[in-house]
Amino acid sequence: MKKSEFSFIGDIATMFSALPHHGFEPIGDDCTVVDMGDDAMVMTTDMVVEDVHFLRSASSAEEVGRKSLMVNLSDVAAMGARPVATLLSLALPESAQGEWAEGFMRGYYEASHEEGVALVGGDTTTSRDRITINVVAIGRAPKPNIKRRSAAVVGDIIAVTGKLGASSKGLVDIMLGDLNTVAACHHRIAQARIAEGIWLGAQSDVHAMMDISDGIASDIKHIMELSGVGAEIELKAIPTDYDIRFATAGGEDYELLLTVASDRFDSVKREFESQTGCPLTAIGRITNGGELRWTEDGATIEFNFEGFKHF
Amino acid sequence: MKKSEFSFIGDIATMFSALPHHGFEPIGDDCTVVDMGDDAMVMTTDMVVEDVHFLRSASSAEEVGRKSLMVNLSDVAAMGARPVATLLSLALPESAQGEWAEGFMRGYYEASHEEGVALVGGDTTTSRDRITINVVAIGRAPKPNIKRRSAAVVGDIIAVTGKLGASSKGLVDIMLGDLNTVAACHHRIAQARIAEGIWLGAQSDVHAMMDISDGIASDIKHIMELSGVGAEIELKAIPTDYDIRFATAGGEDYELLLTVASDRFDSVKREFESQTGCPLTAIGRITNGGELRWTEDGATIEFNFEGFKHF
Repeated sequence: MKKSEFSFIGDIATMFSALPHHGFEPIGDDCTVVDMGDDAMVMTTDMVVEDVHFLRSASSAEEVGRKSLMVNLSDVAAMGARPVATLLSLALPESAQGEWAEGFMRGYYEASHEEGVALVGGDTTTSRDRITINVVAIGRAPKPNIKRRSAAVVGDIIAVTGKLGASSKGLVDIMLGDLNTVAACHHRIAQARIAEGIWLGAQSDVHAMMDISDGIASDIKHIMELSGVGAEIELKAIPTDYDIRFATAGGEDYELLLTVASDRFDSVKREFESQTGCPLTAIGRITNGGELRWTEDGATIEFNFEGFKHF
Repeated sequence: MKKSEFSFIGDIATMFSALPHHGFEPIGDDCTVVDMGDDAMVMTTDMVVEDVHFLRSASSAEEVGRKSLMVNLSDVAAMGARPVATLLSLALPESAQGEWAEGFMRGYYEASHEEGVALVGGDTTTSRDRITINVVAIGRAPKPNIKRRSAAVVGDIIAVTGKLGASSKGLVDIMLGDLNTVAACHHRIAQARIAEGIWLGAQSDVHAMMDISDGIASDIKHIMELSGVGAEIELKAIPTDYDIRFATAGGEDYELLLTVASDRFDSVKREFESQTGCPLTAIGRITNGGELRWTEDGATIEFNFEGFKHF
């Protein structure tokens, strides 16, 4: 966008900050949070646009349906909440109204079924030539489970679930015409860390958490800014099967990025891996001050990759 | 759409009916309803597409911003709830990113400010050539205030707020190049009946309620179907300044359509009009059986206009 997304969102947030909040927390996390007594409800929304986020020639309708849901469930689980319901809006050109729409709904339904998530509302309309999808995901959690970007503490271990970089390597494969590599499948079928996010939400030793949608090089900065801290990340510790640039600056991994009380990290890791079967890897540490420092074998290096920008 | 919107939505609702509902009511009303203890929370979403719902040449960016919000607040108020917050997703082509986006946000902000509604989340992205807007509106009300389409009772008076037909007459004016008639302004600046919906929500003598988005000829059928009743409407009773076809089959009036216990209608009307300054007009009666009967001076007539179809 002409104005960067973050600046435009920042302007909007400032503009609306004077209005009454009615119990909703201000914008800043993966989800907005609203108080429901013992529980909190969280809500998030993502818009998926044809020829910006997917190509009809490269992804099946089922895959687009599945991924449109998963990227939203990922934001809910990244708050430590259980996804319970979604609202789906579809703008479909004539060319997508029969078979494509049915395929999309099959993919969306199958993923909803796997995760036990209801579809509770939506809107369908026509469009002139391209598909636009908007999903809202709603989650619930006991209030203490909600994990915010603002909760990192100096000394915390920075950790990530799974392995990074496959999705952006897969996007490159797809752009080069290679639709069926392992990495390309990762990109096409986003798998959110839902059970993992819920489990981590219940651990009081987990402090800040978010999902990795733009790459850790960009996403860690949100935690730094909202927590008022710095960070140090060891490149060789980052779990990946691909080039380190995909693993740090590549988007759409939908793994979780979190900070954990340092003296409790080993036991959280052990328990997490045994409960979920998903690896949890320490990649760095929360520091004083506002700097992001990259190291390689412990030595500070210059590393200026920014996270993935959609525009 | 190739499949009509209602059939596609019906298929989707059937497909998802087996999934757990997590306390959300099934699809069917203007909003989905979720239990929050003493209160209920309601949620609705609408997608607004360039060259389908608006033309950049005929509506200012401010007007599109205002209307995108108002059509959603109308759905919330039509449930008897107070709108408290919205989520806004915007897909903007390059040509709409500077001035147009700022104008849109001004219109959206001003209407949010008037109604005391927070903006609590959203998404912005780029698109290839056309604007798509998705708004989610959230409302709250004490549980007994929530008005459903399924609550009409045989013998109820059918009533409408305000006057009907201006918006669709205005759309015709606009299509003929006449952008500044009174009717065209009605179409461009949708004004939802928010205070009116909240007031009516608090009356136990008001049974079913919904907003008029597709015209009463189409919208009354939702109340009939979900309440398992019929209806009789007197054409000459319909309050309008325009041709009766605009007032019955024209869309986007955003007035309220409601049913009221017949022996209480006069007192509800008197109190409503004195509190809100908005007229409330009886136009018919809920009947036994599933038929919709139109009368003119009490005599049954053939009248087959269907409500406005967006596609």
